[in-house]
This record gives sequence, C-alpha cells and structure tokens, in this order.
Amino acid sequence: MAGNDSLAEFLASAVQAAQEAGEIIRKSFYQTKNVEHKGQVDLVTETDKACEDLIFNHLGKLYPTHKFIGEETSAVLGAAELTDEHTWIVDPLDGTTNFVHGFPFVCVSIGLTIQKVPTVGVVYNPILNELFTAIRGRGAFLNGNPIKASSQTELISSLLATEVRSVRMAGSCAMNLCGVACGRLDACFELGFGGPWDVAGAAVIVREAGAEVYDPSGKDFDLTSQRVAASNPYIKDAFVEVLCQTGC
Amino acid sequence: MAGNDSLAEFLASAVQAAQEAGEIIRKSFYQTKNVEHKGQVDLVTETDKACEDLIFNHLGKLYPTHKFIGEETSAVLGAAELTDEHTWIVDPLDGTTNFVHGFPFVCVSIGLTIQKVPTVGVVYNPILNELFTAIRGRGAFLNGNPIKASSQTELISSLLATEVRSVRMAGSCAMNLCGVACGRLDACFELGFGGPWDVAGAAVIVREAGAEVYDPSGKDFDLTSQRVAASNPYIKDAFVEVLCQTGC
Repeated sequence: MAGNDSLAEFLASAVQAAQEAGEIIRKSFYQTKNVEHKGQVDLVTETDKACEDLIFNHLGKLYPTHKFIGEETSAVLGAAELTDEHTWIVDPLDGTTNFVHGFPFVCVSIGLTIQKVPTVGVVYNPILNELFTAIRGRGAFLNGNPIKASSQTELISSLLATEVRSVRMAGSCAMNLCGVACGRLDACFELGFGGPWDVAGAAVIVREAGAEVYDPSGKDFDLTSQRVAASNPYIKDAFVEVLCQTGC
Repeated sequence: MAGNDSLAEFLASAVQAAQEAGEIIRKSFYQTKNVEHKGQVDLVTETDKACEDLIFNHLGKLYPTHKFIGEETSAVLGAAELTDEHTWIVDPLDGTTNFVHGFPFVCVSIGLTIQKVPTVGVVYNPILNELFTAIRGRGAFLNGNPIKASSQTELISSLLATEVRSVRMAGSCAMNLCGVACGRLDACFELGFGGPWDVAGAAVIVREAGAEVYDPSGKDFDLTSQRVAASNPYIKDAFVEVLCQTGC
C-alpha cells in the first residue's frame, strides 16, 4: 500500500501531465473550425495521440514499474487487462465530438488504480480552465477548492445528465441558438419555451452568422409563438422533415 | 427606419447593459450552492429582477420613447403585445435551472425589434465570458470576432441541441461525473461508453466529493463494464429504481 506522500506525489505528477496535455488541446480546439472534415479527423487523431504520448512519457519516466492503459493505445493494441498493480488509466481527450465542433466540454482524464481501486483522479478541462482532483480518502477539489455533491433529496427536482449520440442539452435556449450561430452546433430546436425574450436577442445573431431561424414546421419564424428551430441553411430541409415526422 | 449610426449606438448601449447585468449574475452564480432551497429561489428571483431593472433603467433613460418587454415584468403584468415600434425584448437571466445548479450555461439576452423584425441582438454569458452580438445586415460576432454557422451538409453528422426539462447532455462522460462531484448535477448515467479511461479519473473525484458511483442496476461499480451511474447518496435508490424501470 502506497504511503501518503507517494499518493500526493502521484497526484502532482498527474496534474502536471494533464495541464501539459491540456495546453495541446486548447491550441487545437480553436483550429478545428478552420479545417475541412478530413483535416478535422486528422486533428483529433493527432491531438489524441500527442496527448496520450505526452502523458505516458511523463508518468512512465517517473514510475517505470507502473502499468498503463490508454484509449489510443488500446485502440491499436487491444485493451490491457486491469491488474492489482499500480495502473494509470488515461483518456487523453474525452469529448471528441465536442472538440471537433468547438463545444467547450472537453477534458483530459487521468486515473490511477491501486489493487484495482481508483485512488488518484484528475480531470482537466482546458477550455473552461477547470481542474478536478482527488485522492481516495482525502476529499475532492475544483481548482484547489473543496467540492461536495449536491444535497438534493428529491429525484423530481434533480438535474440529470446522460448522453445520446450527437445531442446536446445545455439548458439555455439563447445559448443553443448562439451555438448554431458560431458553428458549435449544426442545429437546434425548442418548443414551449418561456417567451419572446428567450429568442429575440439570438435570432438576429443566428441570421447574421449565416444560419437560419424558422418555425420547426419549416414555416416562417414567429417571435411570439414559443417555437423555434435554427440550423445552417444546408441541413434545414432535412431537419424540418425529421421535426415534422416527430410531430413538431 | 433607423440609420446606421443609431443601430451601432443601440448595440453599444445593449452591450453595456448586458455586461452590467452579467456582473450581478456572476456574483450570485457562485453563491447559489451555499444557500438552502428557499434561499436559492429568492436568489434567482432577486437576481432576475435586479438585472431586468438595471437593463430597463439603462435603456429607458437613453431611449424614453422605446417599448420594453421583459420576462420578469411580463410575469407580473402579462406580456405586452409586440408592435411596430422600437421594442427591447429582454431575458435578464436565461438558464435559471443552470443558475441554481451552477451549470455554466446562463446568459443575459437583449433583442431590439424594429417593425417587429429582430434588428439588434446581444447574448452575454458572464460565466464563460462570451459576448455574442449582431446588427441586422452587418454580421455576427463572438467577443468581437466574426462568427459563422457550420458548413455541415449532412444531418447524420450534425450536432443537435434541444431541451428536455432537467436533463443536460454535455457530451463528455468525465465532465458529467465531475458535474455530480461539484453539485452542478444531481445524477448522471451512461451506458456503452468507450472504456475505463472515461471513468477512472472521475470515479475517485465523485466519491471524494461525497457522491456515489455505481452500476446503473444499483450493483457495485465495475471499472471495466462500460456502465456507470453517479449521484448524491440521497437520491441513489430512487434513481436506480427509475433506471431499472427503463431497462438499464
């Protein structure tokens, strides 16, 4: 069993590796919109690979007897079996789809298991500059400040996250519309939102960015109808067709 | 029809109002987790009201002949009818649920309609420090840099946003888990994600923050199973019951 000092040292090493990898991600994040699809795929692969190499080299030099499991390496060599030994498990770039679209939820994830138990954890989002850290038994931190889970006791009042491929729910109609405007999102729709105040500011932003704002039925947008869809012009017809099929 | 100069002036005035309101939101945003539920509701109401008052006072002094429609005012007095006159339509705080939970998608939305056409738009997220602006016919900008919508032509490759009440999809398993750790989210689950690298770092962060990580069936979490759920301890049983009903 590792002593206290070595756990703190493991965490510090992982944080340093995560921050260096984060720097690579941050630089690429702002380039993805400027390259074509093929270039985007290359950029993801290169960034993923460069980050995993950096993290494995960094930690491998410090801890040559430890094991390593990484997303990129596993994709090539097959996933290594998890053993009782000290094992660094690394996702160099979580949120690849977000990365490509410039949606700001991407992170480096580094975990250390000891006897298969997750013992040191680092999750770093270099776009929002959020560094989550923890050592088993010693509390969790966000940018050095202690964090604690919510005290919500009712499921009905809870905020829940899950994932459906290629769907994002950010919880703000105006932010979704602006996401379409800046190309983070390709399309969005919403029915039954609060009122014209949710869309009046963003409608002109969307249009000036070269996207379209329309009623989910494909008809003209009505600021007072509490129904809105937006997309780039190329996928409008296909999007409206799908929305109509689903009864919008 | 307003001339060019007055539209630029309207935009500058709206940006200033949005930034001042954003300052109020930013300060309150970091307080919400420290107050009880009743206090949270009060904080939302106070923040909403303070921002709307600030924006209406700011713009009302500059443009005494303009009309105003705001979410807060409409909630009290009923929504004013949209006319052909210059009308400022304001959502002082879009993303109220996010605001309460500390989920970083909140914004001030200010739109100006002229003859019912959205003509000036400002959407400002004071947490991410993103200022979206546009004047009709003159392009859209994010923090002063021109933005344009995506060039995605295939719906199947598109990233779509919509909203289901109290559900968030941020597109990163590790970030969702950290969201539960810091109380931004009350619960999350995911099935069939990539591998242990998605959860190894965050698992210890979640646990150290006082939340639980478990299999969606309620059984023990298995790092290699590609199935994960997390929540605060209070809603775990209810959450597992719902997940089991939906076949997880």
